[in-house]
Amino acid sequence: MTLSPVSLKALDAPGQPTPSPELDELYRGFERELLVPLWTEIGDLMPTSPRPAAVAHRWRWSELVELAERAGELVPVGRGGERRAIALANPGLGGAPFATPTLWAAIQYLNPREDAPVHRHTQHAFRFVVEGEGVWTVVDGDPVAMRRGDFLLTPGWRFHGHHNQSDTPMAWLDGLDIPFVHATGSAFFELGPDAVEDRSTPVRSRAERLWAHPGLRPVSQPSPAPSSPIAAYRWEHTDAALADQLALEDEGHPGVIEPGHAAVRFTNPTTGGDVMPTIRAEMHRLRAGVRTASRREVGSAVWQVFDGEGVARVAEREWPVGRGDLVVVPSWVPLTFTAGAGLDLFRFSDTPIFERLHADRVEVEQGP
Amino acid sequence: MTLSPVSLKALDAPGQPTPSPELDELYRGFERELLVPLWTEIGDLMPTSPRPAAVAHRWRWSELVELAERAGELVPVGRGGERRAIALANPGLGGAPFATPTLWAAIQYLNPREDAPVHRHTQHAFRFVVEGEGVWTVVDGDPVAMRRGDFLLTPGWRFHGHHNQSDTPMAWLDGLDIPFVHATGSAFFELGPDAVEDRSTPVRSRAERLWAHPGLRPVSQPSPAPSSPIAAYRWEHTDAALADQLALEDEGHPGVIEPGHAAVRFTNPTTGGDVMPTIRAEMHRLRAGVRTASRREVGSAVWQVFDGEGVARVAEREWPVGRGDLVVVPSWVPLTFTAGAGLDLFRFSDTPIFERLHADRVEVEQGP
Amino acid sequence: MTLSPVSLKALDAPGQPTPSPELDELYRGFERELLVPLWTEIGDLMPTSPRPAAVAHRWRWSELVELAERAGELVPVGRGGERRAIALANPGLGGAPFATPTLWAAIQYLNPREDAPVHRHTQHAFRFVVEGEGVWTVVDGDPVAMRRGDFLLTPGWRFHGHHNQSDTPMAWLDGLDIPFVHATGSAFFELGPDAVEDRSTPVRSRAERLWAHPGLRPVSQPSPAPSSPIAAYRWEHTDAALADQLALEDEGHPGVIEPGHAAVRFTNPTTGGDVMPTIRAEMHRLRAGVRTASRREVGSAVWQVFDGEGVARVAEREWPVGRGDLVVVPSWVPLTFTAGAGLDLFRFSDTPIFERLHADRVEVEQGP
Amino acid sequence: MTLSPVSLKALDAPGQPTPSPELDELYRGFERELLVPLWTEIGDLMPTSPRPAAVAHRWRWSELVELAERAGELVPVGRGGERRAIALANPGLGGAPFATPTLWAAIQYLNPREDAPVHRHTQHAFRFVVEGEGVWTVVDGDPVAMRRGDFLLTPGWRFHGHHNQSDTPMAWLDGLDIPFVHATGSAFFELGPDAVEDRSTPVRSRAERLWAHPGLRPVSQPSPAPSSPIAAYRWEHTDAALADQLALEDEGHPGVIEPGHAAVRFTNPTTGGDVMPTIRAEMHRLRAGVRTASRREVGSAVWQVFDGEGVARVAEREWPVGRGDLVVVPSWVPLTFTAGAGLDLFRFSDTPIFERLHADRVEVEQGP
Repeated sequence: MTLSPVSLKALDAPGQPTPSPELDELYRGFERELLVPLWTEIGDLMPTSPRPAAVAHRWRWSELVELAERAGELVPVGRGGERRAIALANPGLGGAPFATPTLWAAIQYLNPREDAPVHRHTQHAFRFVVEGEGVWTVVDGDPVAMRRGDFLLTPGWRFHGHHNQSDTPMAWLDGLDIPFVHATGSAFFELGPDAVEDRSTPVRSRAERLWAHPGLRPVSQPSPAPSSPIAAYRWEHTDAALADQLALEDEGHPGVIEPGHAAVRFTNPTTGGDVMPTIRAEMHRLRAGVRTASRREVGSAVWQVFDGEGVARVAEREWPVGRGDLVVVPSWVPLTFTAGAGLDLFRFSDTPIFERLHADRVEVEQGP
Repeated sequence: MTLSPVSLKALDAPGQPTPSPELDELYRGFERELLVPLWTEIGDLMPTSPRPAAVAHRWRWSELVELAERAGELVPVGRGGERRAIALANPGLGGAPFATPTLWAAIQYLNPREDAPVHRHTQHAFRFVVEGEGVWTVVDGDPVAMRRGDFLLTPGWRFHGHHNQSDTPMAWLDGLDIPFVHATGSAFFELGPDAVEDRSTPVRSRAERLWAHPGLRPVSQPSPAPSSPIAAYRWEHTDAALADQLALEDEGHPGVIEPGHAAVRFTNPTTGGDVMPTIRAEMHRLRAGVRTASRREVGSAVWQVFDGEGVARVAEREWPVGRGDLVVVPSWVPLTFTAGAGLDLFRFSDTPIFERLHADRVEVEQGP
Repeated sequence: MTLSPVSLKALDAPGQPTPSPELDELYRGFERELLVPLWTEIGDLMPTSPRPAAVAHRWRWSELVELAERAGELVPVGRGGERRAIALANPGLGGAPFATPTLWAAIQYLNPREDAPVHRHTQHAFRFVVEGEGVWTVVDGDPVAMRRGDFLLTPGWRFHGHHNQSDTPMAWLDGLDIPFVHATGSAFFELGPDAVEDRSTPVRSRAERLWAHPGLRPVSQPSPAPSSPIAAYRWEHTDAALADQLALEDEGHPGVIEPGHAAVRFTNPTTGGDVMPTIRAEMHRLRAGVRTASRREVGSAVWQVFDGEGVARVAEREWPVGRGDLVVVPSWVPLTFTAGAGLDLFRFSDTPIFERLHADRVEVEQGP
Repeated sequence: MTLSPVSLKALDAPGQPTPSPELDELYRGFERELLVPLWTEIGDLMPTSPRPAAVAHRWRWSELVELAERAGELVPVGRGGERRAIALANPGLGGAPFATPTLWAAIQYLNPREDAPVHRHTQHAFRFVVEGEGVWTVVDGDPVAMRRGDFLLTPGWRFHGHHNQSDTPMAWLDGLDIPFVHATGSAFFELGPDAVEDRSTPVRSRAERLWAHPGLRPVSQPSPAPSSPIAAYRWEHTDAALADQLALEDEGHPGVIEPGHAAVRFTNPTTGGDVMPTIRAEMHRLRAGVRTASRREVGSAVWQVFDGEGVARVAEREWPVGRGDLVVVPSWVPLTFTAGAGLDLFRFSDTPIFERLHADRVEVEQGP
């Protein structure tokens, strides 16, 4: 946030002191002593409801892919740059590569037979695969295959690198809490080996073999963990869970969150809570023609269309969306989606931050 | 517990007062006023380590089944008696139908086309199926198929009835916390309809369709629940999880709890903790010839052989065990199992009680 | 619990099988194999609401003191007997020294200049002082003065001994979870030195100096602890808190739990919860003439009159009570107190066990 | 954060692509599509350890008071401006009135007989009084006296106004999480009455009468609350707790956090945790001549000298400090204080945010 100098904007705001040379001198005294009065700033700092600097916006996946492909030709992946990732820069956030004040969203792109070097950082990360396959991300030595529809975790402070084992390039969505960690000053980073060490290409990661059995956990690992130990949430399970909810609705039973709208949350099986301390991730499915209730909540979110097409409406803006397209939703801005012939949506948000700090609020309004 | 009259046993215990007519009179005064001194009872009440009244014991499944079949001929299932269940009565517990001071374990038996009427109670219950199929247990209106290897939940205060849809009888293991609830005075009970209302026979229950997807939960049900919402933990998942652990061991990776010994715990996906507040349940698999470390812990357990054969050693007692056989392990008594040509074991225990009260202790000793 | 043999009581209960020689033989088979059917016992085991074996009862403090004084003459305090404590034996519990199925309540008595030797045990203990002073209890080396109105803790597994530094005997109430620990098999015990090592007699314990400042905790000890680190809750604070609630009521503000009825709970300042994992302790104050609402809850409690006089009504029983008198209230039995010219009541209960296991229930009925 | 345009800084950073017209065009494509590459920004976004924009700084209380007095003459307190509060503006944060990226610290000043109007907001607030008295802050209708040494709470969403009942002006320190709430978009605000309704001037607030008794809580309010219900932590208690720790140290017992350094944390008695979800507050006392270990931690803090004098060293900067002086400590910057003839320090920080998100880290280095 960059606030304007006090003397310019304070003059005629409500509840302000009468301008005078003495007041001017006082304000110059504040500046000299590195002070700013509340009374001139309170409108910005304490609005009636959240007035986020970030704005709603849509990015077309096709544009992202095109630029990523071009970067694949011009930009190497290696030590120093670390990743060929290109981030959404919210137009309200002054050019910073931040989708929202807390969330990072980027397309990452890896050429055939290419490696992204190993490192670790306190920022929590995930990948979501809207199309393609052939890359393995190796997390603390455990190779994790990436395939369309999969949601993959790299919780904070785990070493990880990627390598493309196939003859085609692959692109995917990266989500992290980089802006939040940057703003609060909690970033640590450490280099690992230049290339991943285990180049095997198993269908399932070891983490999945230990943890991705429904309702079961290894007795050898009984404690709650801050982040989920499940490295990959496979599309086949997500798809089945969504289909089950809609089938239950057809049979007259509860499960969906509103008519025609199924949704599952990816969770940490050691706690039942969110996958990582700062990030919530969900998959939503709308039946053909369904329009979701208008909903706003404290905190920001990024949505990506996984399949189908429809229309996103965020506050007064409206965008048609199709496969891969991304929509950024700032805090407390109402959102609805309307499905065309069906719509599958991936969503991630910073909600766990607010829930853990007892600052969460939600408002849902039924449409006409 | 029935303590002997003070005057008989106090005479020569350590730290006791010198016998005298005055002391006798004092002790009679205690009895008159409904008082008992600590100094005569402290050895029983405050032993150096737990000295449970319950004893270790093995029950043969074949004997249980034979008596249950006979009961199937002579004893109807209906209102009043409610269930054709026959419970283990620990020989140390004075004839009460208690496997341990906290746990109930029974064989339940249902004839072809027979119904067990609907009721609910605060006692938490589960079923484990060592053989057979054809019965559906209907929990709060949700029909849940029972098949070999399945672990099925009826958490406290849910209406439930059973019906056998097949032409063969079916028997299974019931586990509950009846003794604990009885001892602490927290039992409530309510009758439901005489017969289950939904006689459909789906392969999967609605609860599974909502909840038994690995790492996923319905967004419509975001809160933690005291008991697991998964009505049935299917054998195919349990089996796969155990097999995965042993395969990981073969490949040199962690997962098993000790060499050749895989184990998974059934959990509440809304918390990552135990399935029900008072009961822990697990499945164990031993490779051929493996002998587990000797282990004792505060709290009691019941084990049932699901497959294979081996030897159970509890303190100084040793029993050969095969499919369906049950072994009861009192608090703080050391236990080892030795597998023949492989051994699959179901276990349930009262451990959550002690963990929640910070009274849990475990001691593991490696064998020679 | 001692259940009667099956064959005697099963005959004409509802839902029982028709008597026959075959049934008799079946029942004998059960006995032989250490089995008991549910259908004959379900009425006892699964009542509509709790039917505790323990009964309501009142003990007169004057009777307890008289017998304790006599024991002071005849019974030494030393190794083996450990404590001159005389416990309430609930008439419904077969002569065991158990006030309720979970709680122990005893008068403990120490002669002038007498020591009770040091030991520790997993049972949680407290003292409540209805009259007198002059004894220090030394808990893990920290001397804690005992004075009228004080509530003093000895959480599980802390070494403790007592010594009377005065020229008069002292008696107080001991409360423990001995019956619960006994029933569940979780008792450990260890001897310490024969006499307390630190015979200093500070007015405040070190624990109080660190922890008994309102809303403050030492930064050096930031973690939650299972039991409260406050060794002594002093009467001056308890009295002030109760007086404040009644004064707030006079001024028209909330605070009391019902008209004329103030109550404070002793808490663990590291969690805000109960002082120990199995025991809740509270102090209640009734204005003159006040009658409390009839209240029953799952779990049992013991009340001791600290000051004043009144009438206790438990289910259909009614007792006049005065200073020091004890009333035992079994699970789910309705209780009211009616104050004479004011009534101060100490209460302890096993409620934390039920709350932690999600088995707590309360029912309050307003009087006519 | 304002990042520079990509093309300017990326050219010679490590791991960057070779400059070329094609690369230039790619970068212009990124700008056009509102995208920013990671590889040019990673040094800023993912440093080896936190590199906060905020810098360490000291403000002199005397300067703050002088300007506040002048504001007292020129600036009215009323609707619109709401408060005569003047905030520290960290020189690293571009002129915004933020002491750190998460914390607000301001001097607030009220003239004799003056009122600050009633409002509420989701931001959590406290007051700390370094000198003076005579103001009551009325929180949800409960008048709370403010006196030297007191720490007073206004948790989020409670209506509050202040009024000066005395004939002298009063100034104090306000602490809030305004910058954090601003950055994350979670601010709500609501006006209340123009003047406080209850103008009574009790010595203790109703909140204290209910909650500020050590280890006691009203039975009528049994649930954990996100923020502390104690409206005022009085200096007499804080002072006594600090004195007790140093006396225990003199006697050879634990309690202080390091030699000669006592410290207490203000806590929420319903949880034992921090007073509010985003703010930790503590009071520290150093004996004469004591130098604290160098300590750095994730998250930022503000310290205010309450009494005495000494030297603050933050990273390479060193400032003498005396009564009322404020020192701001950014994330992961090492800090030591050295006491002159004794030093009492108030501290508040954003640590709860990091602890709840599992992002806390601390490093302590003993001095030479």
